[in-house]
Amino acid sequence: MATKILVLGGNGFVGSHLVESLLAGGARVRVLDRSGSLKTPPMIGVDYRYADLADLPALTEALADMDLVIHLISTTVPGTANQDPIADIDGNLIGTVRLLQKLRNAGVPKLIYLSSGGTVYGDSPNRPIPETHPRDPLSSYGIVKAAIENYIAMYGGLAGFQFLILRVSNLYGPRQGHVGVQGVIPTICRRILDGEPLKIWGDGSATRDYLHISDLMTFITAAITQGATGTFNVGSGMGTSLTQLLELFAQITRKPLKLEYLPPRGFDVRHLVLDITKARRTLGWQPQVPLREGCQGYWEWLQRHEG
Amino acid sequence: MATKILVLGGNGFVGSHLVESLLAGGARVRVLDRSGSLKTPPMIGVDYRYADLADLPALTEALADMDLVIHLISTTVPGTANQDPIADIDGNLIGTVRLLQKLRNAGVPKLIYLSSGGTVYGDSPNRPIPETHPRDPLSSYGIVKAAIENYIAMYGGLAGFQFLILRVSNLYGPRQGHVGVQGVIPTICRRILDGEPLKIWGDGSATRDYLHISDLMTFITAAITQGATGTFNVGSGMGTSLTQLLELFAQITRKPLKLEYLPPRGFDVRHLVLDITKARRTLGWQPQVPLREGCQGYWEWLQRHEG
Repeated sequence: MATKILVLGGNGFVGSHLVESLLAGGARVRVLDRSGSLKTPPMIGVDYRYADLADLPALTEALADMDLVIHLISTTVPGTANQDPIADIDGNLIGTVRLLQKLRNAGVPKLIYLSSGGTVYGDSPNRPIPETHPRDPLSSYGIVKAAIENYIAMYGGLAGFQFLILRVSNLYGPRQGHVGVQGVIPTICRRILDGEPLKIWGDGSATRDYLHISDLMTFITAAITQGATGTFNVGSGMGTSLTQLLELFAQITRKPLKLEYLPPRGFDVRHLVLDITKARRTLGWQPQVPLREGCQGYWEWLQRHEG
Repeated sequence: MATKILVLGGNGFVGSHLVESLLAGGARVRVLDRSGSLKTPPMIGVDYRYADLADLPALTEALADMDLVIHLISTTVPGTANQDPIADIDGNLIGTVRLLQKLRNAGVPKLIYLSSGGTVYGDSPNRPIPETHPRDPLSSYGIVKAAIENYIAMYGGLAGFQFLILRVSNLYGPRQGHVGVQGVIPTICRRILDGEPLKIWGDGSATRDYLHISDLMTFITAAITQGATGTFNVGSGMGTSLTQLLELFAQITRKPLKLEYLPPRGFDVRHLVLDITKARRTLGWQPQVPLREGCQGYWEWLQRHEG
């Protein structure tokens, strides 16, 4: 992997793991992020640039001479996107279209984009969902992600750069924060540690596809090494209900968790399990971390670092 | 049809026909448009308001006390949208999300939106295309229309208003202009009248689904009268290649047309025919104007008005 890679959003949860993984693979890494990582010290050998995605001069400079751009920046999470869809469109959709226009000018030959397998499809009785499934997103977060995917394909065709879109399921793992509702697993653990009640919208039967961060890293490494292009679901391929997840954490932590049941939210997808056949067949990739083991590891990490 | 209806973009090609049709059906009509119609004098009994979609105070006033809003405004056409996608997103997507937020506050119970059957689906070997087909738009125009459809469904669910989305095919008919590349039929006729060459991107084999404006009017009347909601394809259900269309106009006009063949554009859909089974079955609607008759009528109208 002797390439020059720019990671947009390289100091976040996914970004910090990705930069480590790329460095281990022998890549030269540049990071553009709004701020430094809260969870890890700066990594040796990385060219850090501190700027917003909207800072076009800084973006242009960061793109210079890169072989690959991996775009992880999102200015929203599903909850905040729905509260202010115009900020979501402005920050993420317009921000990414500007990036695509700059990519063309900078002559960068390839882009990898982290999309959202959990929101672009919307709700579906068909489980698991393959990449060919219609995209009928229910939330602003998913609507904007789907529109970004479309613009990437359009600009890729017009400008001739290759692209790889990863529709990632619910990620979890070390360094994932509970601030900003990053994920349900950190939130469950935080509530257990603090002895505070957990809010559940619905009856707990909604299913999700949980993927450990290290499995995403092996996917990205395989995809870069094998020169994969197009769109891939990246998930565990298995569904876990919220109730099952809570039982798992009750076993792992041996601590009580208070639950506060609320009516379901209209923009939440009820069931989401990704069909990962394409990734298996095309790349020979397979998730390795069982959910119980990954959750146990997260709980231990959280107690060491934030307990 | 004894309702109070606001038509956003009521002075354009579609809007002027629609306002006539609504008045004939007994509705009370208010129009919000940037400017007056170039093709028709103001209609008696219509409450005209002149403002941009982005003018929120004017929009709020126009929404007051309405039973139905029909949203026809588009600040772009397919060609200009691709030239400046950010203006497309800003004018159409953000403009419509602001409208949706205002609809909620104004308590308007129903919205009808004119989407684009010709661009939201993208290219497909499956012809004709039903409403359930995945939306994989290739152009900014189609990407933004698909995103708008998604936000309408989202806000409709959150705010409890009904919505009807019309995925209309290639419209044509009297009052349609050739400025701004509104449609291929006006452009062909204008080039014939002016004796100028017509640019053809590709070999002329690309097919489209041409619908006469009066057939859209009978659809909208039926849909309002029967209280239809959801998403409908509105087209002729038949495909016509550009070469076939040119032959038709050669017969109708008995005038020569110079052709200038150019390479196909990446963002143009090759084949587009809508499956209109849902509209037929649900509303008993059926297009009535044969293409030859409609084209003959347009040619005569153009010679009378712009020859």
